[in-house]
Amino acid sequence: MSVDQKHFAILLDGALRVTERVMAQLRGRRVLAADGGIRHAAALGISPELWLGDFDSTDGLLAQKYPDAPRAPYPADKPRSDGEIAIRHALDQGATDLLLVGALGGDRSDHAFFNLSVAATIARNEAVRVVMTSGAEEAVPLLPGKKTSPDWQEGTIFSVLCFTQVGGLTIENAKWPLDRVDVPFGSTLTLSNIAGSDLEILLASGCGIAIAQVE
Amino acid sequence: MSVDQKHFAILLDGALRVTERVMAQLRGRRVLAADGGIRHAAALGISPELWLGDFDSTDGLLAQKYPDAPRAPYPADKPRSDGEIAIRHALDQGATDLLLVGALGGDRSDHAFFNLSVAATIARNEAVRVVMTSGAEEAVPLLPGKKTSPDWQEGTIFSVLCFTQVGGLTIENAKWPLDRVDVPFGSTLTLSNIAGSDLEILLASGCGIAIAQVE
Repeated sequence: MSVDQKHFAILLDGALRVTERVMAQLRGRRVLAADGGIRHAAALGISPELWLGDFDSTDGLLAQKYPDAPRAPYPADKPRSDGEIAIRHALDQGATDLLLVGALGGDRSDHAFFNLSVAATIARNEAVRVVMTSGAEEAVPLLPGKKTSPDWQEGTIFSVLCFTQVGGLTIENAKWPLDRVDVPFGSTLTLSNIAGSDLEILLASGCGIAIAQVE
Repeated sequence: MSVDQKHFAILLDGALRVTERVMAQLRGRRVLAADGGIRHAAALGISPELWLGDFDSTDGLLAQKYPDAPRAPYPADKPRSDGEIAIRHALDQGATDLLLVGALGGDRSDHAFFNLSVAATIARNEAVRVVMTSGAEEAVPLLPGKKTSPDWQEGTIFSVLCFTQVGGLTIENAKWPLDRVDVPFGSTLTLSNIAGSDLEILLASGCGIAIAQVE
């Protein structure tokens, strides 16, 4: 299968269940690994074209397991996360489409939160398509004024996460549809909806991410 | 030990490791369980004074395990999360201090995110002290203009999660101190700092939460 030079997958250090859907999403992408995220490479049967990391002592076992992965080292005392560094590298290469694998869940709630906020920012500021996945869960940033139509199966539980007040939220083809509703920050109105067929989500303003239990 | 009638613990359905610190934090509190959160009660050796839930079919096994817990049912098709309903109940009882147990981590990233945003909103709008814990992790909302001094051990890894741009962030007594720095939304500048003794965090504006790997 040919590789689209501008479509990237980035392996991050969060949770991952290897599913057929993840394998299909990975096809035809260039793959980068962000530090400990390389631990997912073997299970996915892929070799990253680049492994970005600080390669401090904690990576010893992984380094033994992936001796052939070309490395791009950076200092451990860096002001950016591993994931952000890998995403920046992909953007420098002209990335237009990012699949963030291992971006959700895991033991570190702070990493999971930062991945969400970085993905939302990248999608908005860089006009890049972003999908985050753990195999079990999948998330897509919502851009104001741009309808999002995730291909989630009918019956899939999904939520809209709001970083701010969200204005004019419209959800069509779901168990609880919304029509241009303003959702205050901290409201749980948008928690645990159920997708119908051809789910569509649109917000007028604010910063939101749709997330689903895809498996 | 006497119970402070305005200090509550709320058991939520996220991850929980029962630690000495959690047990100490629980002492002297009234305890409510939010739906599936009651599963933590036995491990903690406590009996909630009230179990709020929709008590649909999925709670069958838990209902057998906790037959004596007084129940406050509500409809399954509700516009609020279980956790928010329990928090509202505590506030109606005059709560001034909330310990949210099982509020972080778990299998549902959307629940974890909503717990963070609800906690931030409650702390700000209701002037209530809020601490969230999973035993392994602990989080405290940051209020603009009000210094936060978490009692986290020297060497503890912590991050400041920013829902918005945060203005004038000051971090004292940490490996990477900050002095009135504006942090854009989506920046990873505030990820993985290390607490010194007497950590102090202050922000001038915006919405942030400090979270630590306490165990």
